[in-house]
Amino acid sequence: MFAPVYFDHNATTPLDPQVREAMLPYLGARFGNASSRHEYGRQARAAIDAARAQVAAAVGAHPTEVIFTSGGSEANNLFLKGAAATMKPGRVAVSAIEHPCVREAAKRLVKQGWQFDEIGVDAQGVVDEAAFAKVMDGRPRLVSVMLANNESGVLQSIAPLATAARAQGAFFHTDAVQALGKVPVDFRALGVNALTVSGHKIYGPIGVGALVIDKRVEVAPLIDGGGQERGLRSGTENLAAIVGFGLACELAESRRASDAACLTQLKAKLESGLGGLGARVFSAGAARLAGTSFFAFDGIDGETLVGKLDRAGFACASGSACSSANPEPSKTLLAMGVAPEMARGAIRISLGRATTDDEVGRFIGVLTEELKRLRGLSAMAS
Amino acid sequence: MFAPVYFDHNATTPLDPQVREAMLPYLGARFGNASSRHEYGRQARAAIDAARAQVAAAVGAHPTEVIFTSGGSEANNLFLKGAAATMKPGRVAVSAIEHPCVREAAKRLVKQGWQFDEIGVDAQGVVDEAAFAKVMDGRPRLVSVMLANNESGVLQSIAPLATAARAQGAFFHTDAVQALGKVPVDFRALGVNALTVSGHKIYGPIGVGALVIDKRVEVAPLIDGGGQERGLRSGTENLAAIVGFGLACELAESRRASDAACLTQLKAKLESGLGGLGARVFSAGAARLAGTSFFAFDGIDGETLVGKLDRAGFACASGSACSSANPEPSKTLLAMGVAPEMARGAIRISLGRATTDDEVGRFIGVLTEELKRLRGLSAMAS
Repeated sequence: MFAPVYFDHNATTPLDPQVREAMLPYLGARFGNASSRHEYGRQARAAIDAARAQVAAAVGAHPTEVIFTSGGSEANNLFLKGAAATMKPGRVAVSAIEHPCVREAAKRLVKQGWQFDEIGVDAQGVVDEAAFAKVMDGRPRLVSVMLANNESGVLQSIAPLATAARAQGAFFHTDAVQALGKVPVDFRALGVNALTVSGHKIYGPIGVGALVIDKRVEVAPLIDGGGQERGLRSGTENLAAIVGFGLACELAESRRASDAACLTQLKAKLESGLGGLGARVFSAGAARLAGTSFFAFDGIDGETLVGKLDRAGFACASGSACSSANPEPSKTLLAMGVAPEMARGAIRISLGRATTDDEVGRFIGVLTEELKRLRGLSAMAS
Repeated sequence: MFAPVYFDHNATTPLDPQVREAMLPYLGARFGNASSRHEYGRQARAAIDAARAQVAAAVGAHPTEVIFTSGGSEANNLFLKGAAATMKPGRVAVSAIEHPCVREAAKRLVKQGWQFDEIGVDAQGVVDEAAFAKVMDGRPRLVSVMLANNESGVLQSIAPLATAARAQGAFFHTDAVQALGKVPVDFRALGVNALTVSGHKIYGPIGVGALVIDKRVEVAPLIDGGGQERGLRSGTENLAAIVGFGLACELAESRRASDAACLTQLKAKLESGLGGLGARVFSAGAARLAGTSFFAFDGIDGETLVGKLDRAGFACASGSACSSANPEPSKTLLAMGVAPEMARGAIRISLGRATTDDEVGRFIGVLTEELKRLRGLSAMAS
């Protein structure tokens, strides 16, 4: 198999070999339905209990506050739609740079009589204080602001936002799928009512995530049935994935500091190279994730460049790679006031645990060559 | 690891070794987010396309009619809630023996102004023709009747029910999770608008299933976001699970006839033994799945007996093992008019592809001994 250098860790991460090893028995002899009251079922239940404790420990929550879901998208939808289903329609407010699974879930509530508010961000992609305060004056019932953005890597100061929102009577949620394992994620210190984490963003399996939620927040399930997960998420528990997710959470926390130190160095090298090539690095003036660079070159189409880098052996993302094929410019950049032409040129590099200094160096070399060619073509055409 | 004989295949099945092999590369170097437009993403997309074709072929549908979900519970909820969300409230009708993920999802609609109708069954657990006709007279908008019951194994004649319901203007859905791989499941021949299948009931992985749906039925997604699955089910596609599910569907169909022949023989031996011990086998007079026996012994508590069998090395289910710990008698049996005391005594044996004649023989021997002891105790107590 041809294996390009993988620079798209914010889209998904490879499964950690230790996590894979931990999962394999549950894809073999240790199969079982955790609801069964025989040996196979009891073993499955014990494994899920252990994983729940691991997830809870990683985010500073109590195991009973962890609701396993099929992933981050489901968890975000569960918070917004599940909480809304227990209330009279009111206002729902989300930041202008949320992942579509938050933004679209919130917009869906409009059909049920809710009012949708978008909270603006500044030119660096940080939630604008005045815009936030103004939206809070409208006393929203539900507020969601992500901890780390999937495209720019920008980090928000969630704790003061949560405090202010809750003071206005809102339930506050944060999508922490891109933050876990990269920056501290502490349910109590953040002061949120709910947060979302996901397996495949932290070297765990796809198909599993969790909504961590304060039990005082009433939510109706999206999926009714056998009553699993305290009745909030029915369906046979995804045993192997949950086991893998638990270990991935534990590893994410134990490796967080050393991973961040490595990624910080690699990103410095990457962005120094990008700077030399005339890139505009978005959100460069804000606190960002260690491994994420989101940038563009004036007059260069991002799609074209990403295609060329792909053929040259580097897997990078253009625009928001988490969504399905979508030629629209990044909503994150538009919200930051970046011009649509510039936003269309955006490329995202997200480095990971296995990224090497050599790979970053080679990438800068290849990028230099590709830019030279593209700029030459563009000079000839003009 | 202590490995009891597994007689609970309707709760979940072990992963077929071929399916496991097919999944492993996707838990390794072939990881990828199918929405990414680089080599890893394209490989993931191609694998998902191939799996979608396998699932479609197994149920006689077109690949574009397959919506991958996290499992059967989600698929059943997606049909009922998703279709209801696009309509004015009306009547929703489900049989009295549906799995809780159909029954409870339908009941959830009551909060949105829907009227809930339950379609009664006869003493064998077969949908009662008169009861069905009466409910159809009320012109329900949504009807769901399962193809094979998870407890009794009873099969319904779906095609005429679907025809009658559709003639009244209803969208008709069938939960086929227990049927696939055991009896023919053909989307066109059944004449349904939608059907549900699941990975882990057919020796595929937990955490994946599909709603197969006629595109003329409008459904709103339960999970909004990146727009995966034609916008009907957002969230990063569960690559390894989908690949495994595709192969499991193909194998289920290719082995269906030979599996059924083996299971029919084994069940005959099992039920002959049960008969000799004085068991009442439920739904014995109806068409049933080849591998499922649901039975009780007068005056014997099912929970107690299942516990003793578990310690003796046989993993069986009492009541409905798909649901979480629930001491209530089986709703399937109550709907059939079985007395609550008798229903509480119910035990379900569901045989599988790897079950041997010897295991069934040993089981009858152990059961004979356990019953002797329990009946002795009960005689002493009285």
